[in-house]
Amino acid sequence: MRSMAAEIKDKVGKEVEVLGWVHRIRELGKISFVVLRDRSGEVQLVLEEKPALGQEWVIKVVGKVAANEKAPEGVEVQVQSIEVLSEADSELPIPVNQDPAKLGLEALLDNRIISLRIPKIRRVFELQAAILQYFGEYMRSQGFTEIKTSKLIGSGTEGGTGLFQVEYFDTKVFLAQSPQFYKQAMVASGMERVFEIGAAYRAEKHETPRHLNEYVSLDAEMAFIESENDLIDLEQGILKYIFAQVGEHNGDILSLWDATVPTATEMDRAPRITHDEAKEIISKQLGHRVFEINPEGERVVCEWAGAEHGVEAVYVTGFPRKKRPFYTYPLEQKTMSFDLLFRGLEITTGGRRINDYRMLLETLPKFGLTEEGLGDYPTIFKYGCPPHGGFAIGLERLTQKILGLSNVKEASLFPRDRRRIRP
Amino acid sequence: MRSMAAEIKDKVGKEVEVLGWVHRIRELGKISFVVLRDRSGEVQLVLEEKPALGQEWVIKVVGKVAANEKAPEGVEVQVQSIEVLSEADSELPIPVNQDPAKLGLEALLDNRIISLRIPKIRRVFELQAAILQYFGEYMRSQGFTEIKTSKLIGSGTEGGTGLFQVEYFDTKVFLAQSPQFYKQAMVASGMERVFEIGAAYRAEKHETPRHLNEYVSLDAEMAFIESENDLIDLEQGILKYIFAQVGEHNGDILSLWDATVPTATEMDRAPRITHDEAKEIISKQLGHRVFEINPEGERVVCEWAGAEHGVEAVYVTGFPRKKRPFYTYPLEQKTMSFDLLFRGLEITTGGRRINDYRMLLETLPKFGLTEEGLGDYPTIFKYGCPPHGGFAIGLERLTQKILGLSNVKEASLFPRDRRRIRP
Repeated sequence: MRSMAAEIKDKVGKEVEVLGWVHRIRELGKISFVVLRDRSGEVQLVLEEKPALGQEWVIKVVGKVAANEKAPEGVEVQVQSIEVLSEADSELPIPVNQDPAKLGLEALLDNRIISLRIPKIRRVFELQAAILQYFGEYMRSQGFTEIKTSKLIGSGTEGGTGLFQVEYFDTKVFLAQSPQFYKQAMVASGMERVFEIGAAYRAEKHETPRHLNEYVSLDAEMAFIESENDLIDLEQGILKYIFAQVGEHNGDILSLWDATVPTATEMDRAPRITHDEAKEIISKQLGHRVFEINPEGERVVCEWAGAEHGVEAVYVTGFPRKKRPFYTYPLEQKTMSFDLLFRGLEITTGGRRINDYRMLLETLPKFGLTEEGLGDYPTIFKYGCPPHGGFAIGLERLTQKILGLSNVKEASLFPRDRRRIRP
Repeated sequence: MRSMAAEIKDKVGKEVEVLGWVHRIRELGKISFVVLRDRSGEVQLVLEEKPALGQEWVIKVVGKVAANEKAPEGVEVQVQSIEVLSEADSELPIPVNQDPAKLGLEALLDNRIISLRIPKIRRVFELQAAILQYFGEYMRSQGFTEIKTSKLIGSGTEGGTGLFQVEYFDTKVFLAQSPQFYKQAMVASGMERVFEIGAAYRAEKHETPRHLNEYVSLDAEMAFIESENDLIDLEQGILKYIFAQVGEHNGDILSLWDATVPTATEMDRAPRITHDEAKEIISKQLGHRVFEINPEGERVVCEWAGAEHGVEAVYVTGFPRKKRPFYTYPLEQKTMSFDLLFRGLEITTGGRRINDYRMLLETLPKFGLTEEGLGDYPTIFKYGCPPHGGFAIGLERLTQKILGLSNVKEASLFPRDRRRIRP
């Protein structure tokens, strides 16, 4: 029966079978050391001969566990037999047993199939899997139902720009840039509280460390709210739960990346400021007046929150109507909407939505839209729709900011950008 | 503070606030009964006046809970005040408080935004959400890591036919028909055991009760297997867990649809038969010789398993090479592959994959393929790849077969077929 590398330290004196990849080979005179890598970690093998193995070969090893204070974790496996399950080409395109920081992002992404073998990189996605788990757990604990909605849409609720076009039999459709329409429809259907974990597509020609053309959106939508503050409360609950679970169960990955997560007490201190207040703070910090919150402004206002409130998280509310989509619930010239800026980056946009059919019809002309142009969308509101709202958290941005990655592409297994469609 | 409809029966004598949709109005002389619907269920309201309400209006009600043995669940709310949160058009396109069986599938799907308000229909998707939860729980309990991979691919691993084309900036890409390439890459990366819940696309011109052009695929892939039997063991574990949890927690939805799930003991009796044996059984049952397993054959062999083994589930193994994709691990003229047929329908296809680079190169010409034509795919195997395999369960088909729905489109929130791209 197989033992995992991480279990070996508890099996001194026992015979074990381990399976994995040859991570490193070191020959010291007549003795050779092989570091074997499996999904749980690494274990040192000792052989009294030169091993007929190459790097990244996959092997099955039987041996006896011995204590050795010089070995990692203080144990090693004295090899009795090795079976080769798969050989590997001796010319790896990039090294997989070195610090990836030396390789550069382009090389890591061009050789993604191989760079994902680098443990420090692979573990980014173990953290991401954990975030997915914790997000679902929290949402279900709050009475939310998971939905899976179509990503092929006849037209965009947020206007036709920024959409990828798909040839669909004899017609054209688009890839959804968010499940906005569908999550609102499900709230109105009586499900009341829904969440979706799904792909979102933006056909924008960005070339920045914060944009992906395909990303995973953690979407939430809930009925019977009064304002964006109910949504911020929900997001606070989500993030405090995710951070607490990550801290408790994924501390090894945080350590590997020299990262920490905010505590619940710290998150409770995250200020809620208006868009106007945010601009004032940024203007003051930068020493010149700003008229919008650009990426530099997001960094500056998070630094301000870190210094003033002890946490680099800021909820910005009260965006002007013209800065928000037509469906955002108005409040005089402002809206019941918010962004969450975390560690210098916007990771969430959300708000209360217009739920009144007549208010929606009155709003459309202000945005150059017509009821007919919105397809089935107005149907949601025509037959009784409760006050509601929601938001979306970008999974890759959240992963990036938890670990302190310099580019959001590092938090996507197979990132897509304007030039990158492979592997 | 809000009480949910399902909690009212425990609050006799208390004042409560309930929120929801007006599901039904009945006037009996001076007294009116209003059935209020929320996400938890329904509750009867009693008014001593004609209510100024319409069907599907969203209201907030304050009242006192009283026992009434004639009311559903034996309780009703004697209304003190009603606040209207949203009015509804009086002309609903389809009724939402009647048995949907009378309406016909086309009407239900054409008016999907409204038909999802029908509780029996909405609850199909509460079951589907539960399946998603249980699938994830089981996979994580077995050491699997959740992945999210790109759905935009440069070329198809299963050939270019059946793919939807996407205009991607200055080039063309395709929507992935499965995460095959990526889940194999993640196994080889050292993650060893991965699962993905994601959309899959098939540009096939089917018009059948069993096909969708966009569906949710529950994918699994695992390293260090010996044959398809290890995969069948895993799928047995998944299904036994899902069925047990559904039986324990979602019995009300099963009852609503007059459905049952197989017990663990029943699932343990599911036979594993070869493709040749399956054809023999079908031939015998039908009274004429069959040369392949078509939809009729799937029904017949499941009926046979029900009669002979007490469970309508059959694992069919040993498919011929030419019936399987090129990457399937060969065993003489057959393959280490399987299908699961459940209640008359194929809900899973899987198998061991070729993990040896040289074996892959030798196989390609037999399928008219070249190494260059496969893009990055061969890279997975060139640098050490363990024996592995996996499978995919169609979420909508599994939902359909658990509840006994007649068409798989009933198990998709917003189904896409050749003609249907809305809502």
